Amino acid sequence: MEYGLISHRAALNECYALDKDHLEIEIKTGYEVTEVLLCFGDPFSAGILGGAEEWSGETVPMKPGRELEYQKIWEISVKPDYKRCKYYFEIHAGEECVYFFEDGVYTKERMEIPGRKEQCFIFPWMNPADINEVPDWVEDTVWYQIFPDRFCNGDAKRDPWYAKEWKCEKTEYLDVYGGDLRGIRKKLSYIKELGITGIYLTPIFASDSNHKYNTSDYYKIDPAFGDEEELKALVKEAHDMGIRIMLDAVFNHCGEQFAPWQDVVENGPESEYYDWFFINQWPLDTKKHDTRDGRYYSFAFAGGMPKLNTNHPGVIAYFKDLCSYWLREWDIDGIRFDVGNEVSHLFLKELRKVLKKIKPEVFLLGEIWHDAIAWLGGDEYDSVMNYPLVESIHDFFNDENRTAGQFSHSVNRCYSLYMKQTNRVLFNLLDSHDTERLFTRVGSLGRFYGQLALLFTMEGSPCIYYGTEIAMEGGFDPDCRRCMPWNEIESGTYDERINAVRTLIRLRKTKKACKSEKIIWQNTGHARVIGYRKEMEGEPAVEVRLNASKEKVKLPECREMLFSYGVENGWLMPDGVCIFSV
Amino acid sequence: MEYGLISHRAALNECYALDKDHLEIEIKTGYEVTEVLLCFGDPFSAGILGGAEEWSGETVPMKPGRELEYQKIWEISVKPDYKRCKYYFEIHAGEECVYFFEDGVYTKERMEIPGRKEQCFIFPWMNPADINEVPDWVEDTVWYQIFPDRFCNGDAKRDPWYAKEWKCEKTEYLDVYGGDLRGIRKKLSYIKELGITGIYLTPIFASDSNHKYNTSDYYKIDPAFGDEEELKALVKEAHDMGIRIMLDAVFNHCGEQFAPWQDVVENGPESEYYDWFFINQWPLDTKKHDTRDGRYYSFAFAGGMPKLNTNHPGVIAYFKDLCSYWLREWDIDGIRFDVGNEVSHLFLKELRKVLKKIKPEVFLLGEIWHDAIAWLGGDEYDSVMNYPLVESIHDFFNDENRTAGQFSHSVNRCYSLYMKQTNRVLFNLLDSHDTERLFTRVGSLGRFYGQLALLFTMEGSPCIYYGTEIAMEGGFDPDCRRCMPWNEIESGTYDERINAVRTLIRLRKTKKACKSEKIIWQNTGHARVIGYRKEMEGEPAVEVRLNASKEKVKLPECREMLFSYGVENGWLMPDGVCIFSV
Repeated sequence: MEYGLISHRAALNECYALDKDHLEIEIKTGYEVTEVLLCFGDPFSAGILGGAEEWSGETVPMKPGRELEYQKIWEISVKPDYKRCKYYFEIHAGEECVYFFEDGVYTKERMEIPGRKEQCFIFPWMNPADINEVPDWVEDTVWYQIFPDRFCNGDAKRDPWYAKEWKCEKTEYLDVYGGDLRGIRKKLSYIKELGITGIYLTPIFASDSNHKYNTSDYYKIDPAFGDEEELKALVKEAHDMGIRIMLDAVFNHCGEQFAPWQDVVENGPESEYYDWFFINQWPLDTKKHDTRDGRYYSFAFAGGMPKLNTNHPGVIAYFKDLCSYWLREWDIDGIRFDVGNEVSHLFLKELRKVLKKIKPEVFLLGEIWHDAIAWLGGDEYDSVMNYPLVESIHDFFNDENRTAGQFSHSVNRCYSLYMKQTNRVLFNLLDSHDTERLFTRVGSLGRFYGQLALLFTMEGSPCIYYGTEIAMEGGFDPDCRRCMPWNEIESGTYDERINAVRTLIRLRKTKKACKSEKIIWQNTGHARVIGYRKEMEGEPAVEVRLNASKEKVKLPECREMLFSYGVENGWLMPDGVCIFSV
Repeated sequence: MEYGLISHRAALNECYALDKDHLEIEIKTGYEVTEVLLCFGDPFSAGILGGAEEWSGETVPMKPGRELEYQKIWEISVKPDYKRCKYYFEIHAGEECVYFFEDGVYTKERMEIPGRKEQCFIFPWMNPADINEVPDWVEDTVWYQIFPDRFCNGDAKRDPWYAKEWKCEKTEYLDVYGGDLRGIRKKLSYIKELGITGIYLTPIFASDSNHKYNTSDYYKIDPAFGDEEELKALVKEAHDMGIRIMLDAVFNHCGEQFAPWQDVVENGPESEYYDWFFINQWPLDTKKHDTRDGRYYSFAFAGGMPKLNTNHPGVIAYFKDLCSYWLREWDIDGIRFDVGNEVSHLFLKELRKVLKKIKPEVFLLGEIWHDAIAWLGGDEYDSVMNYPLVESIHDFFNDENRTAGQFSHSVNRCYSLYMKQTNRVLFNLLDSHDTERLFTRVGSLGRFYGQLALLFTMEGSPCIYYGTEIAMEGGFDPDCRRCMPWNEIESGTYDERINAVRTLIRLRKTKKACKSEKIIWQNTGHARVIGYRKEMEGEPAVEVRLNASKEKVKLPECREMLFSYGVENGWLMPDGVCIFSV
């Protein structure tokens, strides 16, 4: 047995309470392992600790779980009688059997040595306050991300004088086009008809840029976008249509016009806000754009985006009040935290406590591009943007040497990082205002629909970027932020594409297996053909095939074709995709 | 290369801020790996994230760190220019070279594929508020644990009528002997002369047991032990002698006489304290001792120790006030949390915030017997009782088949679990009121001194249990709580033993290398002979040898013998031990 491949710690997503009754335990082993049993029980069943007690537990088999590149996961859900659990593992590989404790691998002989200490794993108590709870509604939501300046101009009176003519082609970094909240309100029916149930708006607060990631006033809707009344109306109308609203919260940094920063610029160390920022040199040179000289810290090296000191009690209090106001006054449903990995954990913990008290079902989403386990313990974010998933998908299509087997391991990895409750609400996306657009990245409608089919059949909360329904093109920022071509849309130019996306969204919502955690990877016999089956208890299964090879492949018999692109007479063409029931 | 043995996550103790400037990174690999390099840099050095940027970092070699049974650790401390760090690893095994990212192992060929996504590791920002800070004084403290009823009777007027005559032999569970705080005050000089600089008192609050782990009033010193004035005098006198005081806080559960519990017993669900406990059935049967029927939750199954609901805001507020009072009024230096793994994380986080504000240098110690990483992130405990270390030491001596090499791996494991700042203050002990006494466990003075030599030359904050200086005997609880034989001590019976312990403590304090994290295990050529060298920059090294074999072994040339037991003419006898400088 490969002892070094056995790994488990009673922490993070390897041992945690799923809810008040269930404790989830998982362990990784090598592929030669044939069976793993959990030996568990109450830590005090044989008396209190100290060394004299003769503890023993109940032994139950663990289930094989997700397979990774070099290890496989075994998992089990147990229900400790008294909320406490002490355990170790019994591991078999054919004839060989060993035991795994905190201090390593034990042979049967070593297990029997009199007087030896048992360094069992312990989950001491399933405290309700520490359980990671996520809002139920999120896993059933299909999101639509809107970059307001480019979505729809509903109120021309609000257009700045320098707004450009609406054009559905390449945009420049400083362009302003006059999209606004009224425009979004006008298009709510369009959005609803797509099947969308959640809108994620990039920032809408006062700011002198088109993207508004440099906030000057967190309490004021940017006048080019609307005002408080407009936002309230949008939220109300959306809610009436069963659509939730998530705002973008840029708390890692502010814009240069933010009053506390202005106060610091004027009054320096005398300002009561001096410690709200990270200023390393005074006097402050605010002329220079770049902050590589470290005179103060900023977002990236953008001098116009001074970094807020989210360690400071004053800053924490300010944003607690702000978000409380957003929830109470505007009744929004979610907050997406921009650069959500750089704000302090302290800040997030304090903020979460307040916000969940005001609205227990509010969704707190962090913009984190990497492994985010440190923010997903249950007292900070509910979820993060699942960039690792899209990167894994991209890499398979980008690299012809990647096999479907490797693809399955890389997707499995994305779901092996967090607790099950988090996986259910991972914010899955294929592109955003920060990346090139999906269609431009993949270059063909077949691959485009293929990746969308993946998106809508993965566990998590899927989000499409506005314009995806028409396969809008766009290179990296700022080109990925083009204006919506409403004339063409209304004249029916894109009906076919819109219908395809609508079909996928409907599928996602009606076939519950799509959102299930249970994914069974299927060997299609072709290295470049992805196949998997999604199952959910009591629901019909669905199967997915994506052909990334250069040849057409024969499809299995299917009961009903639910979605397809590039299927001809039972063959899946290169770049083709289909979802079917069996 | 054994790819499956390469493991790293940018979380826990694998990537963390040591202080405001230094980021610690470690990775585990198999033993065939010959070199690991860290490629790191600022995440935004090539522009903001999104996929278009061409990021590259600086490459620096990592240092080989502790060796575990199947993996070895490589470590490095870096100083990110702007508090942020993006990185991956370059791993060599002879001619082979691969790269390790969040999504796994990459070959050189795969690294060069155009358009591939780089799933680098990221430590996004070293926020000061999130840095794990421990009190500086703890690593230089040598602790003495006192069980007050058995240490010294200083005020006979306080003896309960049922107190037994002081006797230094086997004790029973319910015995009361009349030891008190006045007695401890009287022995402060004795304690100081041993070299002790910290006293850890098991509970002293009102309670009807001798151990007082069933508190009836957290604000009141048990009258048999003293009163507030007595405690204040003890703290003041101890402080004047350079000795710190740590109290035992039993917040996981209370005694039956605790007023809120009494209120619940009387008023049931009408009581305002009903939710301070976990009551599953009403009316309450308080006659039955055992709680295996689950009618309410208790410590272990002890009906007389109802479990407190540390998830409840009222309970959290109560104990916040209490501990604030302890710190403000009594000026104590540390709090040891009994059953510290069962109270809620929320409770500990809230409590820590308040206590560190009142006294930033207060030491918060959790009673946790197992891997405690979930409590040692920096916002709960400063440290835990290092039972895994004593269990590893015990298992080596207990099992003649264990080798010195295995011993080194098991000790290394204990120091591979936490951040470096935690390791420095791990509360190291060999026995306590909860275990059999060291001398009884090992059965010979040689082994006894051997394990003490280990204790005082390990990183962490060493603690001896009262009576260890005379090699007091005692089986499992309650026998490990015998009365101190002051007559014999004062008549000189134990002078030799006391001097030996005093020598070890002095050594610990004068040879700084003893407390160093740097341990170099030495192959003595004998499977059952432990050898290691402790080093610290700018300090003389010390070497340690323990002979657990049945033969005498030749010692190397040494410059100065600092401590020895069982050394004869340059030979280390079976069960012998020595510490020397070279």
